[in-house]
Amino acid sequence: MSLIVQKFGGTSVGTVERIKAVAKKVAAFREQGHDIIVVVSAMSGETNRLIDLAKAMQAVPTPREMDVLVSTGEQVTISLLCMALHDLGQGAKSYTGTQVRILTDEAHTKARIRDIDDAKIREDLAAGNVVVVAGFQGVDENGNITTLGRGGSDTTGVALAAALKADECQIYTDVDGVYTTDPRVVSKARRLDRITFEEMLEMASLGSKVLQIRSVEFAGKYNVPLRVLHAFQGGPGTLISLEEQSDMENPAISGIAFTRDEAKITVLGVPDTPGLAYQILGPVSDANIEVDVIVQNVAEDNTTDLTFTVSRGDMAKTEAIVRNLVKQTGAREVKTDDKIAKVSLVGVGMRSHAGIASKMFKTLAEESINIQLITTSEIKISVVIDEKYLELAVRSLHTAFDLDSEPSI
Amino acid sequence: MSLIVQKFGGTSVGTVERIKAVAKKVAAFREQGHDIIVVVSAMSGETNRLIDLAKAMQAVPTPREMDVLVSTGEQVTISLLCMALHDLGQGAKSYTGTQVRILTDEAHTKARIRDIDDAKIREDLAAGNVVVVAGFQGVDENGNITTLGRGGSDTTGVALAAALKADECQIYTDVDGVYTTDPRVVSKARRLDRITFEEMLEMASLGSKVLQIRSVEFAGKYNVPLRVLHAFQGGPGTLISLEEQSDMENPAISGIAFTRDEAKITVLGVPDTPGLAYQILGPVSDANIEVDVIVQNVAEDNTTDLTFTVSRGDMAKTEAIVRNLVKQTGAREVKTDDKIAKVSLVGVGMRSHAGIASKMFKTLAEESINIQLITTSEIKISVVIDEKYLELAVRSLHTAFDLDSEPSI
Repeated sequence: MSLIVQKFGGTSVGTVERIKAVAKKVAAFREQGHDIIVVVSAMSGETNRLIDLAKAMQAVPTPREMDVLVSTGEQVTISLLCMALHDLGQGAKSYTGTQVRILTDEAHTKARIRDIDDAKIREDLAAGNVVVVAGFQGVDENGNITTLGRGGSDTTGVALAAALKADECQIYTDVDGVYTTDPRVVSKARRLDRITFEEMLEMASLGSKVLQIRSVEFAGKYNVPLRVLHAFQGGPGTLISLEEQSDMENPAISGIAFTRDEAKITVLGVPDTPGLAYQILGPVSDANIEVDVIVQNVAEDNTTDLTFTVSRGDMAKTEAIVRNLVKQTGAREVKTDDKIAKVSLVGVGMRSHAGIASKMFKTLAEESINIQLITTSEIKISVVIDEKYLELAVRSLHTAFDLDSEPSI
Repeated sequence: MSLIVQKFGGTSVGTVERIKAVAKKVAAFREQGHDIIVVVSAMSGETNRLIDLAKAMQAVPTPREMDVLVSTGEQVTISLLCMALHDLGQGAKSYTGTQVRILTDEAHTKARIRDIDDAKIREDLAAGNVVVVAGFQGVDENGNITTLGRGGSDTTGVALAAALKADECQIYTDVDGVYTTDPRVVSKARRLDRITFEEMLEMASLGSKVLQIRSVEFAGKYNVPLRVLHAFQGGPGTLISLEEQSDMENPAISGIAFTRDEAKITVLGVPDTPGLAYQILGPVSDANIEVDVIVQNVAEDNTTDLTFTVSRGDMAKTEAIVRNLVKQTGAREVKTDDKIAKVSLVGVGMRSHAGIASKMFKTLAEESINIQLITTSEIKISVVIDEKYLELAVRSLHTAFDLDSEPSI
């Protein structure tokens, strides 16, 4: 018998019928003898409805009151799910964040969990009840309702799993697992049986938006096995855990992530003096613009070229800042390009497999795709290429690294 | 400087615009230097929306979960009202029943308040904040959310006023006070400046549905002056308190209540033996039918006639029960009539004024209205008449007892 935390998001509990379907799923699990804690989000659309009401009251709603307001969304879902479970004859009890006592700091609308009191939950589990907990919310030391910020229900699930040392935290979504890459781009993309926390973090931050990054970090920190599954289809989903697969089976890379959301800024012919990168990137960062890839090439004539990427929406603002700096840095020219894409190979297998980078470059070269920028980390290699070659690049890399699914018979 | 509790019902906070209007009203009061506690209901329609969701889950929703669900209605309103107050620059803080700690018993969906912790509220008032409390809800000793049952927000207001020894509990409604009778029937009906708790209870139970009976009883018990006012029009409203007016000014009666909701059952020619009333009314009461007026006439031939009234909706069921009893009681006949109306004079002045009853009967006789049943209590005389004479009866009594408003100049 295991202790399982199951988290269902807003879409999975978005209608009366779906809540009933979730209840059936949960009750079936419970009948297998597992202890079950269910974490739910607000019914889809509800949080936005509440936020609209708030904005009608106050242009910038008071954070404390915002939390009182939006936390009602999950409170509605926990009670409805318990009713649906009772209707199936399954004992169940609902808990708000305050009732569990999910203690957080006082940072309204973006609170962080400090401690979870597991006494009442353990009592209920021992009594054979399914425990249904409102995601996304907690309470501070003074009894004020707090929320963890958007998507925080995943974090609630992982935090509960960590506090109660659950065997697994299952995140039910609208996909049946984590894929080697986006199946809309590569039809042969394969569901991964397992992936490490590190790999998932690299995949998530690059566009495979299955899980909240914060909850993956959290799960990794407390070593809570996470499983991503489809809410209404069957299947084993993808297990995200600390362990790598045994070396023998370990593939070189686990997946290919990509993004089209970036733009490239190149400052050409800057006199190569110490502090140059800071001189240019400092003002960019001061304007709250996040910089992703940064590459500095050493040039022949005592000048250098600095290239970096920012979010596509920030390009105009960034360009204005950088052009302002041209005179004081003595740079020759500023170029921008928003027709770029970033493709990344991700895999802990890189640590034990040599030649991944050169195989990647060779594959792209064979397709005549020019690489504009390269960055590497321990478990990731990213290249920036012309946007129009994105699909071709991902597909050919997917095949080259043996990620294509087995042909069905 | 006074401490005032102001309660606004669902209609008064039913839209974004109305919540803003309430915020303005409250802020203006606060600026006069009063300490203000505001109690609010759920936005009109919200509670029914939630109940419909519950019923879609479970034919008879679990009471504990029902309370978790419907209590979100008031939680939404308190946060929105605080935002609207902040938008006006007025400090305000919201409290759920759990956060105040409105301690109740464990009777979900119809809990009774046991104790109110006033510490946090007093702190906020001292800091110059308006305190906004969710009506209708509390928390039991184990941290479970409870609700006081429909209309319970009035009770929350009165309970807070009692616990904090407020100078007045103002109930804002869609009428500008308590009237001598229904203005839709008697155009000359007058708003009463004041009325006693006892009178209000008699008026309320008879159809002047301005206040929840339970909150009036509660206010009377703890001697909390209650004031009924219109939420958006001006005016002093009606003060409901313990004190009668000085004897000199004391009118014979304060108001005329009436109802068309009843039906009359008469059992004719029952052998007049001890226990007769119980023999007939026992089975009626066992069927959970509430009996209102009961009159037993002594007849000549050792038989008696028993007449009683029930809610009109219960007439058919009651008739069936009573007809079943005809044989065993030896009664001659059962007659029913649902074309009746009950008219009641209410007033503590009856205690000091003689001849009220005879004046009432004389007035009705002059209009040739036949009285079918009469019952009296210390501050009320009720008669049952043919429904078609209801308006005529109320109007002529209203004039006869000097309740008509002064003609405007």
